[in-house]
Amino acid sequence: MNFSSKLIEEAVNEFSKLPGVGKRTALRFVLHLMKQNKNEVDQFGNAFIKLRSELRYCEKCHNVSDKILCEVCANPHRDHSTVCVVEDIRDFMAIENTQQYRGSYHVLGGIISPMDGIGPSDLNIETLVKKASAGEIKEVIMALSTTMEGDTTNFYIYKRLKEFNITISTIARGIAIGDELEFADEVTLGRSIVNRTLYENTLSTK
Amino acid sequence: MNFSSKLIEEAVNEFSKLPGVGKRTALRFVLHLMKQNKNEVDQFGNAFIKLRSELRYCEKCHNVSDKILCEVCANPHRDHSTVCVVEDIRDFMAIENTQQYRGSYHVLGGIISPMDGIGPSDLNIETLVKKASAGEIKEVIMALSTTMEGDTTNFYIYKRLKEFNITISTIARGIAIGDELEFADEVTLGRSIVNRTLYENTLSTK
Repeated sequence: MNFSSKLIEEAVNEFSKLPGVGKRTALRFVLHLMKQNKNEVDQFGNAFIKLRSELRYCEKCHNVSDKILCEVCANPHRDHSTVCVVEDIRDFMAIENTQQYRGSYHVLGGIISPMDGIGPSDLNIETLVKKASAGEIKEVIMALSTTMEGDTTNFYIYKRLKEFNITISTIARGIAIGDELEFADEVTLGRSIVNRTLYENTLSTK
Repeated sequence: MNFSSKLIEEAVNEFSKLPGVGKRTALRFVLHLMKQNKNEVDQFGNAFIKLRSELRYCEKCHNVSDKILCEVCANPHRDHSTVCVVEDIRDFMAIENTQQYRGSYHVLGGIISPMDGIGPSDLNIETLVKKASAGEIKEVIMALSTTMEGDTTNFYIYKRLKEFNITISTIARGIAIGDELEFADEVTLGRSIVNRTLYENTLSTK
């Protein structure tokens, strides 16, 4: 693309580094910023600079936090003997938003992906093993995605934790509530029959 | 959404001010930035702050420019008696990329849109009329979109310019090269027959 200004070219290049943003979308963003007043654009740019420089992670669960411990880990009313293992803060937020979970979390910061050069040592797995060996945990709930990478990570963590006296569970996979059976994929439908739950148990969660 | 950090919440809010970006996409951008090193994020944020504070517009055509005159207006090899009227820098870039146009431009900075509260006085129309009255222009090519707003703007500019001895043309509308006739909409197909061009003329543009 032929930009009439170096400043625009730089700003477009910066925006197009974001995931899923091409040059055209980046230019749309830049044109939008150009129409805003100076204070708003300063605030826009500084929000990210501040985010990166002041960002801290919870010492216990590696979740993003403004303090040493995150809100969940610092909350005495949560069950800290149950730990839900999630890939990143997005999955943490998704589960928190259900308001169904009263345990704590462990944020891996990614999943094992040899294709992207991410091995177990790049993730927050050792601290989970340490927590387990200290006898702090009764149950670990694996809540990773059902991709090849997710399954690999699940299996790796399972192998590291099985020597300790800990229940290791995974979140239920099945037909989503509201979905039609006829459109469900075979693997999910098959699993939902094998891992069927007692009807009584479904009544209590309503 | 329930964010575990104020910093993340602020950054997500800033991103979601961009056109077409919701909270989920904004969060994806923020998570991406969190994984970058500090220098890169500083560069990211500063690119926009710098853009807004140092941005200038060409005095002649209102295009974004680093100097007083933009590259096109400062180029003595371009035909400055032919002026192509465009809505914004995106359309300017699209036409420049065709490498078929050797005239100059006039960037309106928007189109007349009563629904959005944009009237003729909000656009760079007076400077175009001034250029026309000074006798600098032989032909004005209207290259606005064929929406209601574009047609209104076309007509307004036509009325303002018709007292001067200037040819006022619009870019050709018709079936796009490579498109199938059967799938073309009726208005476009109808116009492409009414405004047919001599076959000889199409040979020279190949």
